[in-house]
Amino acid sequence: MSNYNVPDPDFEDRVRASFTRQTLMKTIGASLTEVLPGKVEIQLPYRDDLTQQHGFIHAGIVTTIADTACGYAAFSLMPADAAVLTVEYKVNLLSPAVGDFLAARGQVTKAGRTLTVCKADVFAVTQGQEKVIAIMLATMMAIKNREGLIG
Amino acid sequence: MSNYNVPDPDFEDRVRASFTRQTLMKTIGASLTEVLPGKVEIQLPYRDDLTQQHGFIHAGIVTTIADTACGYAAFSLMPADAAVLTVEYKVNLLSPAVGDFLAARGQVTKAGRTLTVCKADVFAVTQGQEKVIAIMLATMMAIKNREGLIG
Amino acid sequence: MSNYNVPDPDFEDRVRASFTRQTLMKTIGASLTEVLPGKVEIQLPYRDDLTQQHGFIHAGIVTTIADTACGYAAFSLMPADAAVLTVEYKVNLLSPAVGDFLAARGQVTKAGRTLTVCKADVFAVTQGQEKVIAIMLATMMAIKNREGLIG
Amino acid sequence: MSNYNVPDPDFEDRVRASFTRQTLMKTIGASLTEVLPGKVEIQLPYRDDLTQQHGFIHAGIVTTIADTACGYAAFSLMPADAAVLTVEYKVNLLSPAVGDFLAARGQVTKAGRTLTVCKADVFAVTQGQEKVIAIMLATMMAIKNREGLIG
Repeated sequence: MSNYNVPDPDFEDRVRASFTRQTLMKTIGASLTEVLPGKVEIQLPYRDDLTQQHGFIHAGIVTTIADTACGYAAFSLMPADAAVLTVEYKVNLLSPAVGDFLAARGQVTKAGRTLTVCKADVFAVTQGQEKVIAIMLATMMAIKNREGLIG
Repeated sequence: MSNYNVPDPDFEDRVRASFTRQTLMKTIGASLTEVLPGKVEIQLPYRDDLTQQHGFIHAGIVTTIADTACGYAAFSLMPADAAVLTVEYKVNLLSPAVGDFLAARGQVTKAGRTLTVCKADVFAVTQGQEKVIAIMLATMMAIKNREGLIG
Repeated sequence: MSNYNVPDPDFEDRVRASFTRQTLMKTIGASLTEVLPGKVEIQLPYRDDLTQQHGFIHAGIVTTIADTACGYAAFSLMPADAAVLTVEYKVNLLSPAVGDFLAARGQVTKAGRTLTVCKADVFAVTQGQEKVIAIMLATMMAIKNREGLIG
Repeated sequence: MSNYNVPDPDFEDRVRASFTRQTLMKTIGASLTEVLPGKVEIQLPYRDDLTQQHGFIHAGIVTTIADTACGYAAFSLMPADAAVLTVEYKVNLLSPAVGDFLAARGQVTKAGRTLTVCKADVFAVTQGQEKVIAIMLATMMAIKNREGLIG
């Protein structure tokens, strides 16, 4: 972790301001629980209006919080004038997403000038016990000088 | 398409009943607009409470409808006593998810006894014009004889 | 296909010259059998020194020809001064890679200024009959002005 | 690591015997340098007949050794009568594959009855210095009772 280059000392404010603009986070009840350089955690309490057909949190929602965690982990290491977009990701669903809440922990694997590669683990937490239920490998892109794209 | 083996003639009822149990679909406003053997379409009207920081539909929601379309495309070709679970997927986001509505079209590439490989294209539709904004490649699994898993 | 923008009319020469520099192609016996704008085919005769433990062509070699087909499909649409590098890919292996030869057909899904998304299907061909045995979804990158990277 | 269940105490012999049958490993000069429960390393000396157009080891060969490392990491935890096949993988190429040799380290993330999820990191090693140049996330499958598939 200590090797990350952090071009913008105000990265946390920038991440938090951008997160607030993600209206989906409020809709599903997700919160930003940790913002470090190159490392971000999102938590999501279990809600029975977010499930697939067996009552597990839908894989798409598991992906949503993993994507947001990876995106902001990447964004935390970008310069202040960059916006971040997701290029692509791959997710393996390991176990049913059930528990008191989910925690998606995204971390930068390699930060490049244009592309940043990140990993996320998503945990289901039940009575304080954590179990990894999904893993993501993602590519994020820094966008500059494109009108209307902030954060 | 004509080469698919369809072990359960009541596949459409089975898919529709399972879709209804996906509470997330109602939460985000998605509907099941086509169910054919090995091919399913999900539509999602644009809503500004489903966005990321730039006002585009969040990649996780794009993934949600692609996953559901792929899952039910696979499920349509499974025997009546199987449940379906997502093993993994990869998504490339090609263009911003903005428009009147999104349409995710999932299709089976190869149906196996245990694993089924599917593709989905997600389109943004604006005033009747379609533009592909994301593509998914997914692996689905047929689960049998596991208590509590129906559909 | 007809919608591709082709900035360099000499794309085929450029692709063929770069392919010749891929020493691995000669080592495994692969050849470049079609070069169209945004679409490239690579063929590989079956050889029993390229197999995994069951006598099928190794997944890594299937991936090799799919990657080269995708990379040159992307490269065919790049300007004359760009080099191409693979950012990432995902491959699903559908059936054992056995037959007289394999054919990997790569095609551009979306060509962007920096990133190009491609798909490839890999077929096993036996006595003229084709069977798709693997599919790839890949992201390629155009590199400019980096010393020493040509083609 | 200590949590892996190891159903076959002779896993190392089984892995080594299967590796020997992968003719491709000999062709490219790869060797099996570590076999632990759920963890396998493959090394590959740099050779200039294994490169892409810029003289880096071809992404497909990087993938080959990562796939073999993941496959045998999964296989090491399977029962003695199972064969292993690769279902799918995703690879991110992080840096050029150049150095004295490459080392692919595959490790089981989750071992299931049918499917096993693995990760691999591939390092380029130059004068004893390691640099991660690629990461893989893979799904492997245990195959039983299929005639002709051993190991």
